[in-house]
Amino acid sequence: MGIVLGDNQYGKAETRLVRVDRDGERHTLRDLNVSVALRGGLADTHLTGDNAIVLPTDSMKNTVYAFAKQYGVGQIEEFGLRLARHFVDSQPSIDAARIAIEEYGWTRLGPHSFARDSSETRTAVLTYDGNATSAVGGLQGLVLLNSTDSEFWGYVKDAYTTLPETRDRILATEVAAHWRFGVLPGEWADSYAGVRAALIEAFVDTYSRSLQQTLYQMGYRVLEKRPEIVEVRLRLPNKHHLRVDLAQFGLDNPNEVFVAADRPYGLIEGTVLRDDASPAGLSWW
Amino acid sequence: MGIVLGDNQYGKAETRLVRVDRDGERHTLRDLNVSVALRGGLADTHLTGDNAIVLPTDSMKNTVYAFAKQYGVGQIEEFGLRLARHFVDSQPSIDAARIAIEEYGWTRLGPHSFARDSSETRTAVLTYDGNATSAVGGLQGLVLLNSTDSEFWGYVKDAYTTLPETRDRILATEVAAHWRFGVLPGEWADSYAGVRAALIEAFVDTYSRSLQQTLYQMGYRVLEKRPEIVEVRLRLPNKHHLRVDLAQFGLDNPNEVFVAADRPYGLIEGTVLRDDASPAGLSWW
Amino acid sequence: MGIVLGDNQYGKAETRLVRVDRDGERHTLRDLNVSVALRGGLADTHLTGDNAIVLPTDSMKNTVYAFAKQYGVGQIEEFGLRLARHFVDSQPSIDAARIAIEEYGWTRLGPHSFARDSSETRTAVLTYDGNATSAVGGLQGLVLLNSTDSEFWGYVKDAYTTLPETRDRILATEVAAHWRFGVLPGEWADSYAGVRAALIEAFVDTYSRSLQQTLYQMGYRVLEKRPEIVEVRLRLPNKHHLRVDLAQFGLDNPNEVFVAADRPYGLIEGTVLRDDASPAGLSWW
Amino acid sequence: MGIVLGDNQYGKAETRLVRVDRDGERHTLRDLNVSVALRGGLADTHLTGDNAIVLPTDSMKNTVYAFAKQYGVGQIEEFGLRLARHFVDSQPSIDAARIAIEEYGWTRLGPHSFARDSSETRTAVLTYDGNATSAVGGLQGLVLLNSTDSEFWGYVKDAYTTLPETRDRILATEVAAHWRFGVLPGEWADSYAGVRAALIEAFVDTYSRSLQQTLYQMGYRVLEKRPEIVEVRLRLPNKHHLRVDLAQFGLDNPNEVFVAADRPYGLIEGTVLRDDASPAGLSWW
Repeated sequence: MGIVLGDNQYGKAETRLVRVDRDGERHTLRDLNVSVALRGGLADTHLTGDNAIVLPTDSMKNTVYAFAKQYGVGQIEEFGLRLARHFVDSQPSIDAARIAIEEYGWTRLGPHSFARDSSETRTAVLTYDGNATSAVGGLQGLVLLNSTDSEFWGYVKDAYTTLPETRDRILATEVAAHWRFGVLPGEWADSYAGVRAALIEAFVDTYSRSLQQTLYQMGYRVLEKRPEIVEVRLRLPNKHHLRVDLAQFGLDNPNEVFVAADRPYGLIEGTVLRDDASPAGLSWW
Repeated sequence: MGIVLGDNQYGKAETRLVRVDRDGERHTLRDLNVSVALRGGLADTHLTGDNAIVLPTDSMKNTVYAFAKQYGVGQIEEFGLRLARHFVDSQPSIDAARIAIEEYGWTRLGPHSFARDSSETRTAVLTYDGNATSAVGGLQGLVLLNSTDSEFWGYVKDAYTTLPETRDRILATEVAAHWRFGVLPGEWADSYAGVRAALIEAFVDTYSRSLQQTLYQMGYRVLEKRPEIVEVRLRLPNKHHLRVDLAQFGLDNPNEVFVAADRPYGLIEGTVLRDDASPAGLSWW
Repeated sequence: MGIVLGDNQYGKAETRLVRVDRDGERHTLRDLNVSVALRGGLADTHLTGDNAIVLPTDSMKNTVYAFAKQYGVGQIEEFGLRLARHFVDSQPSIDAARIAIEEYGWTRLGPHSFARDSSETRTAVLTYDGNATSAVGGLQGLVLLNSTDSEFWGYVKDAYTTLPETRDRILATEVAAHWRFGVLPGEWADSYAGVRAALIEAFVDTYSRSLQQTLYQMGYRVLEKRPEIVEVRLRLPNKHHLRVDLAQFGLDNPNEVFVAADRPYGLIEGTVLRDDASPAGLSWW
Repeated sequence: MGIVLGDNQYGKAETRLVRVDRDGERHTLRDLNVSVALRGGLADTHLTGDNAIVLPTDSMKNTVYAFAKQYGVGQIEEFGLRLARHFVDSQPSIDAARIAIEEYGWTRLGPHSFARDSSETRTAVLTYDGNATSAVGGLQGLVLLNSTDSEFWGYVKDAYTTLPETRDRILATEVAAHWRFGVLPGEWADSYAGVRAALIEAFVDTYSRSLQQTLYQMGYRVLEKRPEIVEVRLRLPNKHHLRVDLAQFGLDNPNEVFVAADRPYGLIEGTVLRDDASPAGLSWW
C-alpha cells in the first residue's frame, strides 16, 4: 500500500481587470474578475518542491493584463479561450487550462461615465486540453420574484410535516445558471442576451406548483430558444417569504405582509439537457 | 467618584418586511429593512433588571408588520414617521424614537413579477422626541466611475511621497450620501429622485482635480436643486484603479488596462450645508 | 431530438441548530448548520408540478430539530448518518440522501458560559443510498502562516514573468480540507482531532519550496497517521504577503514589513490518496 | 443664503500591515489594519481642486509601512499615537489626526509558525490635535453565550406584544466594546487584557433579567477594575436563540433545542462612565 498524488491543479484566482476602450470621447468599460487553473505533469513540485516546470501564478496575472492590452477583451468567452490556449500551447508541461471569468455590468451615464449595475454577474468558463475546447456560459446573482401564481400542495405528509398547503404564495429565488455550448456561437453577446431573456421569461410565465417545475421550465425555454446550447444547470434557492399571522392583532393578511427570511432556505438544483447532447468532456471542470 | 449609566438606547434591528399591494392583477412590491431604536427613562432595566417600562423588541417587530397592513408602507419616510410617533406617543417612558429604514428596489417584469435592482439602497432615518420631527434621506451602494476627466497633481510631497502626478486617471467611488430635510416635503418620492439625479449629474459633470472637489460639487448640486434639503453628508471611498505598467512586456498602456484594487482605499468624507440651516437636533442620532 | 430532465436534487439548506445538553449545572453546547439534499424519482414535480412524492423541505428542517431532541447530536458524523438513513428509509421515492453539516466551536468559560471559537469550522458530509454509506470529514477557515522556511525559485520564466526568485518568504494559507473515510471510525472526535493535528503539524514542519509541496505533505501526514482515512482533498489559497520596498525611504526591509494582499491569490488544489483506496462512490457528491 | 463646506476629513483606510520581528529563530507576528483620517484647512481642494496643502493618501500608506520598520509596531496604541503626532506635526495645514487600528490575533504554533485566532479583533483609536491626545481601546467580534441564568419577564404588554415571558433562556451576544482612557497607561497590553477579562467575567457572572442589565454590569466591571478607564461604550446585539416547539412531534423541549436566528435581532447600546470623567474631547471622533 502506498500514498500517491491524485488530481491537482493550480493557478491565479481573482485577477481584477478593468479595460477602457477609447473611441475618441466615447469610452467603453469592461470589468472582469479572471481566474486561471492549470493541470499537467506537476508531480515534481508536489513531491520534491522542484519548480522547473511550474509557471508562477504571478506570470498568469501578468498575462491577463498584457492580453487585455494586446488583444482587447472582446466577449469574455473569447478572452477566456485566448488565455486557455495560450497557457496550454506555450507550457509543455501543462495539459489543460480552465479560465473562469466573472463580468460586472455597468450602465452608461455619459461618454465616459458609468454606474455599476446590480449584483447580477455574467460568467464564463472556458477549457482547453490541446484538442478540445469547451465553453460554459452563466449568470449568477439574478434575484427574481413572483408575488402570486405560485402554489404548493399535494405533497407528502410525514410525522414531521407541519407546513400548511397553499394555493397562493410568493415565489422568489436567486438564479445561478450555467449552460454548456454544443457549438461555439459566432455572436456571444447575442447568445448571452437570449439565454438571459429565456430564463427570465420562463420564470415570469410559469404558473408554478413547485420551484422544481419553474426550474425545469427555465432550462427548457433556454434549450428551446437557443440551438447552440445543449445543457443547462440551475441552482435555485427558495427564498422563503413567510406570510405574517396578523390575526392576533385583529387584522387579516390576504398575502400582503411577509417576512423575507434569511435561513434556512429550500435549495433546488437540476439539469435540463438535450437527449443527444455531446459528452460534456472538460466542460464542468 | 461614582460609576453611572450614560447614554443608552435599545430596539429591534433589521426587521425584514415585504409588502405586496394588489390592485387586481397588477401588484406593487415594497422591500424594506426596518430598525427601531428607543430612548428614555431606561435606568431600571440597566441597574436592576426591572423591565416594568421596557417594551420588548419583539413587540416592535410585530408593530412594523401590523402597521404595514393597517396603513400600508407608502414612502419610507412616512412609514418611519408613523412608527416613530407611535412608540413615543404610546410608551410613557420613551422620550425619543429613531426609525432607520433601508429600501431595496425591484424592477417590474410583469403584472406580478419583479427583478431585484442593484445593490444601491435608498435609506431614511426618522426621529421624533414628542415635539420635533426630523428626517434624513439617503442612499448607499451607488458605484460611479469616470474613465477620464480626473487629475491629481500639485499636492504635498513629503519624505514618504512616491505617488506620481497624473493628468488623467479613473475616478471611481461608492456613494454613501445622507441629506437632512429643512422642511418635510409633500412628495418624498420626487424629492428622492431629484437628490439622486443631482448627485449623479454632479459626479458625471465635474472635471475633477480631487475627489474632494467632486464631493463638494455633489453636495452643492443637491442643495442648489432641492430647496427642501439643508445639509448633505457624503462618504466617498476612492476606489483606486491602478494603471498597469506593461512596458516590461513591450506594451504601452495609455490608460486602458487597470487593476481594480480592493484595499487600501482613500476615504473622503465631507458635509455641504446651507449657512442658514436650522440646527440639526436629533437628525444625525 | 428531445429535451430531458437530467441530474437533480433538492432539500433544505442551512438549518441552524443549537443543542444544549444539561448535566445538572454543567451544560454542553453544540452549534450546527445542517443542509439536507435528496435524490430520487422526482421527475413529476419538475415536469408537471405534481408533488405527490415530494417531502417538503420544511419537514426536513423539522426533522433536524426533532432528531436533535430524540437522539441528541453526538458527533456530527453520527447525526448526519442518522438523518441520511431516515430520509432514504422512510421516503419510498428517495434513492439517496446527502447531509452536510458545519459545526462551530465554542470554548467553555463556565458551567454554562461559552465564547465562540475562531472562524475555523468542522465539517462532515454523510451520504446513504439504501446500501452504501460514505463519510467525508473536513475543516475550513483554518488560517496558518509560516514567517520563514519558505522559498520559491527555479520556476519557468516566460515572456510575462517578472516575479523575483526568493529564498525566504512568508507562506500563509486558509486551509480547506476534506477527507474520505475508508472505514467508519468508532471514535469520530478522536479521528477529527488527529487529522487536524496532522494537517497543522505538516504545515509547521515542512521546509517549503512551493505551496504544492506543503499541500502534499499535509495530505501525506494525514494518511500516514490515520489509517481510517483513504483520501484527502486540499484547497489552499496562497495568501500573498508582499515585502514592502522601503529603499525609497532609506530603509532596508529584511523580511520584516509586509503587505497582506487581498486579491489576486494563488490557488493550489490537490488530492493525496492511498493507491488501494476503495472507490469513492457517493462520497464527493 | 449661501452654501458652504462643513465638517470634512480624509485619509487612507485599511492599510494592511504584517510586521515580523525576528529574534533569531523565534519570530513574533503583528497583523494590523490601519486607517488614517486627517482634518484641517482643506477648503481649497474642495472648492477649487487646488491640492497644494493636500498630502496624498498614498503617502499616508507609505508612512505606515515605513514607521513599522523604523520604530516597530509595539502596542497598537503607541503605534497609532506616533502616526497621529507625525501627521499633525509635519503637515502645517493639518489640525488633527485620527488613527484607527484593528489588530488580528495569532496563536503561536512554533518558533515561526502561527494560526489566526478567532474573529475577535482588538481595536484602538488615537487622536491628536496638536495639544491633546486621546485614546480609545476596544474589541469587537467576541461572541459570548450563557445557556441559562437569563430571564425576561415583567415587561410592558401593549397591543402588539405576543412574546411569552420566560424564566430561562439563552443569552448570546457579539460584543462591540470601546473604552476611553482617562490617563494613558504605561502598560497597554496589560490594560487590554484586564478590560477584556472584566467584560467576559461580568457577562459570565451576571444572572441576567435583561441584556441591558448585563451590559451595565460589563461596563461597571471594567471601570471597577481598571482605574485608567473613564468610560465604556457597549453595543450588544441580542442574538436570539428561539426554543423550538416540539410538542407537535410528541416531544417536550426543556430548553435543549434552539433555532439560532439571523434577523431581526435586538440591539442594546449603552454607556457606563465615571461621574467625574474628563470631557471626551476628540475621543469619539
